[in-house]
Amino acid sequence: MVLAACIILLPFGLTLVERVEFMPTSLDTLKEKGRRLRIHSLIATTEAGSGHPSSCLSAADVASVVFFNEMRFDPEDPHNPANDRFILSKGHAAPLLYAAYVEAGIIPEKEILTLRHLDSDLEGHPTPRIPWVDVATGSLGQGLSAGLGNALAAQMDGLAYNTYVLLGDGECAEGSVWEAAALASYYKASNLYAVIDVNGLGQSQHTMDRFDVNRFAEKFRAFGWFALTVDGHNYVDIVEAFEKCRRDGNSLPRVIVAKTVKGKGVSMLENREGWHGKPLPRADLDKALNELSQPFASDVFRPNPRPRPAVLPGRAEGSIEITVNRKLGELVATREAYGDALVKLADKDTRIVALDGDTKNSTYSEKLMKARQDRFLEMFIAEQNMVGVAMGLSARGKIPFVSTFAAFLTRAHDQIRMAGVSRSNLKFCGSHSGVSIGEDGPSQMGLEDLAMFRPVPGSIILYPCDAVSTERLMAEAARWHGICYIRTTRSKTPVLYSNEVLFPIGGSKVLRRSERDCVTVVAAGITAHEALKAASQLEAENTPIRVIDAYSVKPIDGVGLLNAAKDTGGRIVVVEDHYVEGGLGDAVLNAVGNRARVVKLAIREIPRSGPSEALLDKYGINSKHIVDAVKKLM
Amino acid sequence: MVLAACIILLPFGLTLVERVEFMPTSLDTLKEKGRRLRIHSLIATTEAGSGHPSSCLSAADVASVVFFNEMRFDPEDPHNPANDRFILSKGHAAPLLYAAYVEAGIIPEKEILTLRHLDSDLEGHPTPRIPWVDVATGSLGQGLSAGLGNALAAQMDGLAYNTYVLLGDGECAEGSVWEAAALASYYKASNLYAVIDVNGLGQSQHTMDRFDVNRFAEKFRAFGWFALTVDGHNYVDIVEAFEKCRRDGNSLPRVIVAKTVKGKGVSMLENREGWHGKPLPRADLDKALNELSQPFASDVFRPNPRPRPAVLPGRAEGSIEITVNRKLGELVATREAYGDALVKLADKDTRIVALDGDTKNSTYSEKLMKARQDRFLEMFIAEQNMVGVAMGLSARGKIPFVSTFAAFLTRAHDQIRMAGVSRSNLKFCGSHSGVSIGEDGPSQMGLEDLAMFRPVPGSIILYPCDAVSTERLMAEAARWHGICYIRTTRSKTPVLYSNEVLFPIGGSKVLRRSERDCVTVVAAGITAHEALKAASQLEAENTPIRVIDAYSVKPIDGVGLLNAAKDTGGRIVVVEDHYVEGGLGDAVLNAVGNRARVVKLAIREIPRSGPSEALLDKYGINSKHIVDAVKKLM
Repeated sequence: MVLAACIILLPFGLTLVERVEFMPTSLDTLKEKGRRLRIHSLIATTEAGSGHPSSCLSAADVASVVFFNEMRFDPEDPHNPANDRFILSKGHAAPLLYAAYVEAGIIPEKEILTLRHLDSDLEGHPTPRIPWVDVATGSLGQGLSAGLGNALAAQMDGLAYNTYVLLGDGECAEGSVWEAAALASYYKASNLYAVIDVNGLGQSQHTMDRFDVNRFAEKFRAFGWFALTVDGHNYVDIVEAFEKCRRDGNSLPRVIVAKTVKGKGVSMLENREGWHGKPLPRADLDKALNELSQPFASDVFRPNPRPRPAVLPGRAEGSIEITVNRKLGELVATREAYGDALVKLADKDTRIVALDGDTKNSTYSEKLMKARQDRFLEMFIAEQNMVGVAMGLSARGKIPFVSTFAAFLTRAHDQIRMAGVSRSNLKFCGSHSGVSIGEDGPSQMGLEDLAMFRPVPGSIILYPCDAVSTERLMAEAARWHGICYIRTTRSKTPVLYSNEVLFPIGGSKVLRRSERDCVTVVAAGITAHEALKAASQLEAENTPIRVIDAYSVKPIDGVGLLNAAKDTGGRIVVVEDHYVEGGLGDAVLNAVGNRARVVKLAIREIPRSGPSEALLDKYGINSKHIVDAVKKLM
Repeated sequence: MVLAACIILLPFGLTLVERVEFMPTSLDTLKEKGRRLRIHSLIATTEAGSGHPSSCLSAADVASVVFFNEMRFDPEDPHNPANDRFILSKGHAAPLLYAAYVEAGIIPEKEILTLRHLDSDLEGHPTPRIPWVDVATGSLGQGLSAGLGNALAAQMDGLAYNTYVLLGDGECAEGSVWEAAALASYYKASNLYAVIDVNGLGQSQHTMDRFDVNRFAEKFRAFGWFALTVDGHNYVDIVEAFEKCRRDGNSLPRVIVAKTVKGKGVSMLENREGWHGKPLPRADLDKALNELSQPFASDVFRPNPRPRPAVLPGRAEGSIEITVNRKLGELVATREAYGDALVKLADKDTRIVALDGDTKNSTYSEKLMKARQDRFLEMFIAEQNMVGVAMGLSARGKIPFVSTFAAFLTRAHDQIRMAGVSRSNLKFCGSHSGVSIGEDGPSQMGLEDLAMFRPVPGSIILYPCDAVSTERLMAEAARWHGICYIRTTRSKTPVLYSNEVLFPIGGSKVLRRSERDCVTVVAAGITAHEALKAASQLEAENTPIRVIDAYSVKPIDGVGLLNAAKDTGGRIVVVEDHYVEGGLGDAVLNAVGNRARVVKLAIREIPRSGPSEALLDKYGINSKHIVDAVKKLM
């Protein structure tokens, strides 16, 4: 038994000394586990008729050491907050993960034979349908960010667990890996361990750096990591490397770069191209298993869980409510109201944290940073990692609010997609939406953000037009579990609603109505104000219109829209500061179908730089164009 | 005068020896240019009332050396293929770029006063409305990829020009920078120069690595670059660094890491937080200009253009036609037909090149690699850089076909967005679309790709259902200038069309029709085959339906759809292997508006792993569900 004192440095001011008791697993037991991980992986994939056994075999030995010598977890309790975490970034090696669950006693052995069945949670790539899986993987290069999210959550909560991330070598070509690497070093995430399985072969050919494990190590060192290289099939090497990490890793995140052989253990697969993503044919399985038939003198594996922490990370009791205090007509940018609400919500619920990509003085998330430094994470200009980290934080019970310019959230589209698959509890805020931002030009204008978030299953999309609705919708977002997108606007807009008005998800507001309304204008955000201007002008011309603030873009208020359409002769004009495809207009079209005639005013070309008002006019979404559209429709 | 022989190693087999004559610009002239770049930047941004002068000032000296001592270009001819290229990756320093154009004699001095005007091409961030700008920048971290695209085009074409990319330090947090760095080293892009302007300040606070220029250099060295650090305001240092790059850089890409001061030259701005993205108020401008009032003893700048190359990179004459040779009923995956067509098209047009992210054996772009190794670029698992490089290749006259799984194109959404702003001529192919891929599970299923490509202004989207239409549509894509997305399917599908059928962009095909059709079913790709099955079943039940193959999702065949709707009582069922938002269903809804009742069959939740046919059934898009929807609609 080895007794070690492990000092964990926390950037949030807390220093935590944990006495860790290591009961090392015998080398033969680890080898036996490795052998059995290989056998499960081969049988499961052949049985499934698809999968990636050769990618499992290269990593079986490092996985054995991580699971059965390094990690401390309670196989009976996936929800013990003190469990070490494991993320399989190379998600295609899912059978290896499931095999480890079998060998750890987490799932019964026969369950692995359900791999890739429609009714099985053992999917082709891991998803959180299994409670031990924090985030879905399979889109490569995302696991390290999620692992860093776990590690930062541990720091915030003062918990001693480590997070282990197993990466493939091929996926290290993904820039998101280096975004995570840089930030892990910046935040001194010494509770984060990465293992790189350098088997030298990608899907279609050799990897970029082949077996150059030193180059991998040098890259990580340059990014501020403690890095070691090992023979990934030598158990003494691997075990010692982890010990050395603990001894010499200081406050750095740690990486073990393991030189491995793809298909290791089965001669017909070893280091052969053309076997990626292919199971062994049934005819070859027995031969392969025969090569793995010699057991090692194994002890029974004894898990070594940490006790459940006495004090659990904070949870809010009951519903989150905030008070709103604005003056009607006051000019406030919705982005600024976002920051105000963030501070109020964080006061109410300790799970709420904010992340921003060096735009905090534009998105106003800096209000939270100034109010509560310990609940704010500066993520620098690396949006993919920002969302990946947020997924990890969400998996550990936080409610992350992630903000940047709406345009730059496209940078993290794949992570947002995977957050959907992961059923993460994430709130996104995209500021500077639309051409209304003005002179900075098209690269800075979020014009496809609604189209990006609408397809995420179960997502909700909120688009406030004033400070009151922003604050109310922020509380709705915080209360609701799942992916939520909040769209804010750069310009200041007048407060339209009184402080007590509520804005339920899926609702809408009628901003202007009369008995004689001839057309319904549906707007949101900046265009709600243009619609009101148009209504005043049209009223003066004795042509009253209905104006609807569709603050809930998804789910959209279908009933409200249809009622308005019915009252106004089935005539609808939708006006939005977004490209014409995929945004509010399409949401409205879907809601009303053939029960109304819908005319869409939206951006139809690449915009130019120019003053905000000139752009709203040039691209056809200001009050003048609304008036024209209404007249034309009548 | 220095006479140097410069050997350029080309990975495509060609070695090119160029005799370069350097006529060094005097240091005082360079300093004077630097002074004037600062003055222009300050005046232009104050005049515009917005912009990022402090970010221009830090980079003014390195920019002066690059433009007026290093680069060889003909100010009269932006289209000279031998011109060195410059990419301003830190696009917010656009006024500095425009100032350099003024000082190089490319644009008149007074034009810079139109900065950010609605009718000016001098936008807030650079766009290719200016012929000297290769790609739009402003979304940070993308310029190095585009520069690498230029550099690889030079290698392919045997041209001796260099590409210079100016990056900010903050944007080096973006992973895409490191994707580009790794690949530039892999392809020995010694004709690529990066300059990092390390001014230590981001938008909202200090950068991650502050002034640690050595860390930047170490990172680049670990990624295989020749890296030097300099004082970015010392002209002797900067000039020598470039000379050292040429002398000692061997076959490596070269980076100069310049330690600079944000706002350099204007004491009220120097190294001050809170000045990012803010012009000097008019009241302070004179004071600032006064600090820059001392001219240096300058010579007239004499550009040193390379002569236009005698042999220009290949261009196709006339229209690209290919012959198609399939058998009706033959089972061929559209992804395989994509590869076949790629080879035929590349035979016809030397501009066509293919890029793939280690999925070439799945997308079948490997067919081109096998046929013409010199027209294929393996980009490894780094989709952002793949698209960024393709933008650079497009800017240099290539027609890049970029392929990976449809799901993984989301990784490059921001680059795709910027390719739209750049008006790049890019063809994307997403294979493995939809749940029909089967057991690999949701992380691998492209279910939001149509929603992502539809909003790109001017984009076209083609979605073939068989091998003949795939090949024909590939030729359409190659002929058409702009962004095109081609969606292919994993499973084999029977050939439905005879070889001579044409598939114009914006058209559709009626696959089944009778005089008595009661419902129109609109399908594409895999669902076209399900719709035909449904039609046969319904016909047997004496309920004939119209089946439309909507192979052109954007532009959609509105006339064809409306005619079919008219013939079938205004009843339409749209069935697609895509999430219900943003795809074919929304395209159809937009086309028919209130002139038909549209029922959408599409994916409405996160799918599971399972056999392809079981998934089509479970998620409601197979023939059985089409039959049900038709019956319900009647």
